[in-house]
Amino acid sequence: MRADSDWGAPASYIPELARVDPAQFAISVVTADGRLHTAGNAETRFSVQSITKVFTLAIALGRSGDQLWQRVGREPSGLAFNSIIQLEQEQGRPRNPFINAGAIVTTDEVLSGRAPRDALAEIVQFIRTAAGSDDIHINEAVAASETAHGHRNFALAHFLASFDNLKNPPEMTLGTYFHHCALEMTTTQLAMAGRFLMGSPAGPGLLSTARVRRLNALMLTCGHYDGSGDFAYRVGIPGKSGVGGGILAIVPGQASIAVWSPGLNHYGNSLKGTEALAMLASRMNWSIF
Amino acid sequence: MRADSDWGAPASYIPELARVDPAQFAISVVTADGRLHTAGNAETRFSVQSITKVFTLAIALGRSGDQLWQRVGREPSGLAFNSIIQLEQEQGRPRNPFINAGAIVTTDEVLSGRAPRDALAEIVQFIRTAAGSDDIHINEAVAASETAHGHRNFALAHFLASFDNLKNPPEMTLGTYFHHCALEMTTTQLAMAGRFLMGSPAGPGLLSTARVRRLNALMLTCGHYDGSGDFAYRVGIPGKSGVGGGILAIVPGQASIAVWSPGLNHYGNSLKGTEALAMLASRMNWSIF
Amino acid sequence: MRADSDWGAPASYIPELARVDPAQFAISVVTADGRLHTAGNAETRFSVQSITKVFTLAIALGRSGDQLWQRVGREPSGLAFNSIIQLEQEQGRPRNPFINAGAIVTTDEVLSGRAPRDALAEIVQFIRTAAGSDDIHINEAVAASETAHGHRNFALAHFLASFDNLKNPPEMTLGTYFHHCALEMTTTQLAMAGRFLMGSPAGPGLLSTARVRRLNALMLTCGHYDGSGDFAYRVGIPGKSGVGGGILAIVPGQASIAVWSPGLNHYGNSLKGTEALAMLASRMNWSIF
Amino acid sequence: MRADSDWGAPASYIPELARVDPAQFAISVVTADGRLHTAGNAETRFSVQSITKVFTLAIALGRSGDQLWQRVGREPSGLAFNSIIQLEQEQGRPRNPFINAGAIVTTDEVLSGRAPRDALAEIVQFIRTAAGSDDIHINEAVAASETAHGHRNFALAHFLASFDNLKNPPEMTLGTYFHHCALEMTTTQLAMAGRFLMGSPAGPGLLSTARVRRLNALMLTCGHYDGSGDFAYRVGIPGKSGVGGGILAIVPGQASIAVWSPGLNHYGNSLKGTEALAMLASRMNWSIF
Repeated sequence: MRADSDWGAPASYIPELARVDPAQFAISVVTADGRLHTAGNAETRFSVQSITKVFTLAIALGRSGDQLWQRVGREPSGLAFNSIIQLEQEQGRPRNPFINAGAIVTTDEVLSGRAPRDALAEIVQFIRTAAGSDDIHINEAVAASETAHGHRNFALAHFLASFDNLKNPPEMTLGTYFHHCALEMTTTQLAMAGRFLMGSPAGPGLLSTARVRRLNALMLTCGHYDGSGDFAYRVGIPGKSGVGGGILAIVPGQASIAVWSPGLNHYGNSLKGTEALAMLASRMNWSIF
Repeated sequence: MRADSDWGAPASYIPELARVDPAQFAISVVTADGRLHTAGNAETRFSVQSITKVFTLAIALGRSGDQLWQRVGREPSGLAFNSIIQLEQEQGRPRNPFINAGAIVTTDEVLSGRAPRDALAEIVQFIRTAAGSDDIHINEAVAASETAHGHRNFALAHFLASFDNLKNPPEMTLGTYFHHCALEMTTTQLAMAGRFLMGSPAGPGLLSTARVRRLNALMLTCGHYDGSGDFAYRVGIPGKSGVGGGILAIVPGQASIAVWSPGLNHYGNSLKGTEALAMLASRMNWSIF
Repeated sequence: MRADSDWGAPASYIPELARVDPAQFAISVVTADGRLHTAGNAETRFSVQSITKVFTLAIALGRSGDQLWQRVGREPSGLAFNSIIQLEQEQGRPRNPFINAGAIVTTDEVLSGRAPRDALAEIVQFIRTAAGSDDIHINEAVAASETAHGHRNFALAHFLASFDNLKNPPEMTLGTYFHHCALEMTTTQLAMAGRFLMGSPAGPGLLSTARVRRLNALMLTCGHYDGSGDFAYRVGIPGKSGVGGGILAIVPGQASIAVWSPGLNHYGNSLKGTEALAMLASRMNWSIF
Repeated sequence: MRADSDWGAPASYIPELARVDPAQFAISVVTADGRLHTAGNAETRFSVQSITKVFTLAIALGRSGDQLWQRVGREPSGLAFNSIIQLEQEQGRPRNPFINAGAIVTTDEVLSGRAPRDALAEIVQFIRTAAGSDDIHINEAVAASETAHGHRNFALAHFLASFDNLKNPPEMTLGTYFHHCALEMTTTQLAMAGRFLMGSPAGPGLLSTARVRRLNALMLTCGHYDGSGDFAYRVGIPGKSGVGGGILAIVPGQASIAVWSPGLNHYGNSLKGTEALAMLASRMNWSIF
């Protein structure tokens, strides 16, 4: 991973992400025995973006249980993360909670009538507790920029509303959505926050084993948009990527891993992050299969 | 699972499958220590259909290696098993080897210039070796009926050919495809044949560990057509279903399971077979997540 | 057309349209010699809705000429009037100016930086001049209701904006759009307003003959959403329908016809209005073919 | 149209069409008074291809009447001429008789149990009678080449069969289809053959006025594939194009026009032929609008 390698290009749709230097890399691994291993810029904060969808899904399932699945499906989409095509073909029910439309629905479920600040407080507190750190914050400039450039997400939210699959006004749900996506974390904070998905005693015990397994199943089948099958094939463990270049990956019972490198591959997932995870999993003989 | 339960309806597109009594059930489990457990009609032969796609994929990868992926993808399809829509949208490259179009391509790769009988002999011998039984045969009546009613598959094959993604004449590749899908096995034979996917020393060691893991990854993300995400969520282990009502499921390192019940759910997967696997996995605490 | 006939159901998406009695009918015909013929409730005002898209297109072409076609196409859509699928597949360029997305673009072009009230004033004045009547007004309750229930149109507008195919803020363009769709006219006013599309000296001479012909061509190929081919086949003259149950139809050089009956067929076009036009065209031997 | 102009590229999918020199042009016009006007290579025979779909449709309507519309629609497709997507989405009913799938259905209807040679004899005789010339023949080399390279059409035919929308075996219907598409005519023969679509006494009176009008309506809305709206807008008269570079266009009551120039535009319609028709229609003030 020398300076002359191809690092991929960072997300370009908002200036805050576009101007990040792609030639950065960090990895943090927390093993089941509680030990932490890091390399690279592991104390640099980055925009976790879609990775928060795992945490909001955990909260939404905690609040609503299986009723949530009436509003959103559990199948891979076969299309880009922000596609609206299936939403029309399938009457406003997003395919899964990890594409944008589905995450807007889970955010809407977490919101459910409360003021956005209260829902956000719950989401942030959940992540801080999971990570064991209070030093995790929302980048307001990123949230504002997402709002200003978020026409595609506004389209998705209004489309959901046209099928009565939004309980709150689109602006309110999207405001909450843009803010939790704008959380910033270091890879170490993120790996710590993912411990509960190991399903081991080392985790904070926030969810039942059955629910943890189901979150991992969803990450495996849907966590990398239309590159999920490829990630499962090449890396072999559940993971969730964000457009900021982060990936949270879980080796059940063994490790919680966070990588970050801002350059993306053509699926919109971290290029070097994916390669690093494939290498690490292979060398450690980590695979769920 | 009493007589008054809803067993689902068997596949109806050919008489040979349509007239099977749906109120049948069998399960066979082979554990890593080589012990066999069975229940129900475990000695009844049924049409394994799409489950053979796992074996032909294993053979195709053995013959062609990663070059195969130039002709077929590794992503869930988000559409029905016999849909032709993505094939047009993605220039004749099927999304994965387990939807019909993809399995026609892997069959075409296994065929590669040989007489169909030679390719079929290799496929049947692979499965017999894996199962440790020579008493596994093709049902010619089923193969003939598939051919007679196979307009949708002929459409897929000609469509592939129109994009130069078929090396052999459509009739020849389809003849081979229809024949290996017409193999009949008992659940015990199928569970035995699946041992090599456990990746354990008890298996016949036909493939490397890395390749076994990748086959399991593909089964998990794509093995149940557009119900793959749901199966991963509810059952939590890799599996491949067939329209004859069979499912082969793998608990890596621990068990190879075959279930059979001819009634299907709306995805085209065995209704009772899926339920039985979910129950068994839960009680045995078997999950890859 | 007796009381016991099937009148179809009125549009149901806003209360103002849903509560209109479907068992109403009106027709007004203005011939090239300037004579007016009417039958039914020809002095009842109804919501013209999408029929205004013809007039806004005429204005947009007058302001921008053929540059408009960089933003919107001229092909039938093959999908419902409010579908968003092709908008994604074709990078935010609507197929034609008569589906919702296309009419939002032409409205945006008419608006082009002005205050909505100024653009609306131009649209209303154009129609009043064409009709030779100042007694044509916007129903503010309908406009407000469209805004309140317009999530699908908001989705389309934001989607257009995400592809940089909207010059004004979505709310501003949509406000203008909802208002001109909420114009109310009688069939007589509408038939009078359509005279300029006859291309005859009796018309107000607002447009060149070439442009008039092109507007008629667009009405023929795209004027009845995904029922345009059927209307051309059965009726044989250009027309533009509105979800309020009105249709403006043109016999070039001979007649401008307005019909109204609020019950719709499954394409969303007036059921009895279409039947009446087919009957009239047949009896009068009016056809462009 | 000098030597240095851009003539477009001829169809490339079979050698017989690909090797035609694109820098050729011919036009023949028959007016209602029976006079013939020609320019260019008006005695050169070219492959009329899809233009025969107009004649087979006329025959199919004569044999089956409106029952034909149960098997095929009358709406523009919004997709390429050989797309299979809508065929799956709309359960095997092609959108109109002028896209490939629809023309296979009308050919199947004309065939209806007879030997292909008998159906072909009827089609050829119909065209010869319409043209007033017996010197019109099928190019067997073109028909054979279409068969050899016709995987996309085989896919369409089998797909239709899978929905029970084919009465004859796919090979038989396609054999008939490929043969009538392989007819060769001069522009003069074609313009003569189109006279009956003028609806005037000069025509051979093969069809009723109502049916003639409906054929023209279908040509206008669907006759140029996904460029039909553009042709209606720019040229303003009904027409049907063929991939061999020919176009038959009709000015109802006034003229039957055939143009030919083998180079195609991106819709698959003759580039120079379309331009010539636009120019001619404009200069002659010919328009149906």
